[in-house]
Amino acid sequence: MTGALPSWNDGDRRKEILEFVASVTRDGGAGYVPPAERIAVFDNDGTLWAEYPLYVQIYFTLSEVERLAALEPALRDKPAFKALLEHDLKALQALSKREVFEPAFAVHAGMNIEQFRAAASAWLAEARHPKFGRLFTACIYQPQLELMDYLREHGFKVFIVTGGGIEFVRTVAERLYGVPPEQVIGSSTRGRLELTPDTAVIRKLAEVGSFDDRDEKAVNIALHIGRRPIFAFGNSDGDLAMLRYTLAGEGERLALLLHHDDGERESAYDRQFLVSPLNEGLDRAAEYGISQVSMKRDWGRVFA
Amino acid sequence: MTGALPSWNDGDRRKEILEFVASVTRDGGAGYVPPAERIAVFDNDGTLWAEYPLYVQIYFTLSEVERLAALEPALRDKPAFKALLEHDLKALQALSKREVFEPAFAVHAGMNIEQFRAAASAWLAEARHPKFGRLFTACIYQPQLELMDYLREHGFKVFIVTGGGIEFVRTVAERLYGVPPEQVIGSSTRGRLELTPDTAVIRKLAEVGSFDDRDEKAVNIALHIGRRPIFAFGNSDGDLAMLRYTLAGEGERLALLLHHDDGERESAYDRQFLVSPLNEGLDRAAEYGISQVSMKRDWGRVFA
Repeated sequence: MTGALPSWNDGDRRKEILEFVASVTRDGGAGYVPPAERIAVFDNDGTLWAEYPLYVQIYFTLSEVERLAALEPALRDKPAFKALLEHDLKALQALSKREVFEPAFAVHAGMNIEQFRAAASAWLAEARHPKFGRLFTACIYQPQLELMDYLREHGFKVFIVTGGGIEFVRTVAERLYGVPPEQVIGSSTRGRLELTPDTAVIRKLAEVGSFDDRDEKAVNIALHIGRRPIFAFGNSDGDLAMLRYTLAGEGERLALLLHHDDGERESAYDRQFLVSPLNEGLDRAAEYGISQVSMKRDWGRVFA
Repeated sequence: MTGALPSWNDGDRRKEILEFVASVTRDGGAGYVPPAERIAVFDNDGTLWAEYPLYVQIYFTLSEVERLAALEPALRDKPAFKALLEHDLKALQALSKREVFEPAFAVHAGMNIEQFRAAASAWLAEARHPKFGRLFTACIYQPQLELMDYLREHGFKVFIVTGGGIEFVRTVAERLYGVPPEQVIGSSTRGRLELTPDTAVIRKLAEVGSFDDRDEKAVNIALHIGRRPIFAFGNSDGDLAMLRYTLAGEGERLALLLHHDDGERESAYDRQFLVSPLNEGLDRAAEYGISQVSMKRDWGRVFA
């Protein structure tokens, strides 16, 4: 275990992870969990890649929203659309996660899934983070890549459970994280099958089917996975339900919460990030049995 | 390949399956498909286990419906509940799949998922098929077990996409078919997370979240799997959308439709099974590019 998780600093968090994995995989041990039940879930925005000052998907939406507003002028009066059209990041940051994501989901209504993925892929191939200057797809966290690999090497099946759009995250999850589409759960719009003699496509509708945040994360884990995870990792109050649902099962469990406290290497924010605050999490993590990870203290390296 | 699929008679269908698998797995061949994209989907009722004269889950509901009707007397006026309470199979068979399943979903509203699974498991451990006398769980088809194994041995990931309740099928899918819960897609009721300081459970609500039949099967495949399958197997008109969605992708595809034409070893029914008819499928399979499997002609053995 000495060479494992090289980008995690030697300390309590790294030790806790290594001990947990050792315990649930020790054949005949009290904490043993069969491989089929080794389910790990990770939030995406802020847990696997940078989410500050705003979600990657919102930057993608910025590039598409003009087209939509031209089609539906009434949208210009909605606060999130107005802020997007004016590229007013401050106004967007003052809205709730749901308000901010609404235009992100609506802007692609009418596309079929293949068209949406192609549009998202093309944008992600070029788009750069405004603060770090690197591709958004390069703003993924090296310690988390190592952790997901480490879990998989020990028989875990790793899922992403994101508040972001399920199809947006699927566009990159396999390539960036090694997580196949069927192991990505996220917010989704309803779809409609369109069958012709020669084609069959799923058309994305504007109506939200699931907004995968807070309690809905646990409900969607039950719906999509059908097993209670034994390991969960998040970074905001929106992840607490998922972490607590994980911990409430029998046997050994581990739930971790990343604190963005590293303004030098990444960004420092928590309670004041209104889109997705870490507030209850800071106050009650210990009471809930959740372990806090400090980016500054626990990670030797941030980006991959 | 001579020893493969021993319960499939040597004939066109077995040959077609073996050739398809050989083609998509032949490294460097024109039909090659990478393992990650080898997604196979199977319907459950009538495709993996017997569904005639009525769905297994409906027999389960029969055993539970009295309890519910005592709680909610108004339900007695609904045709499906009335027929269930009177054990009137003929009346049930004249209803649509949705009407028949409605009480099956409603009867367990208020239970949490763990409680529901325990109730279903206990019932399935004892309950026997009215015609065959054997356990319902022994009314699974041997040729399909061999086929699922064969596909998995060739790098396929096998999913079940059922009109039945997702939690009901998950109760047995891993043990009977080797399909883990996260690879079962089905009809579902909405759930609600209930968090207390000590527990976190998902409570089943009465409201249907998804009725996984016809077009909805394709929509749910897109939602849960996020890839278009390359192989699909069904047995009723309710599966046609899934089969056509599968065939509409690029490259080699195979879609099969089981015809229950074996009254001697199992049951012979198609157009007149109103709950889940095979009607359009009989008339248009060839036009859609779907291959028909005859239980009588193509299977050397039926039950496992």
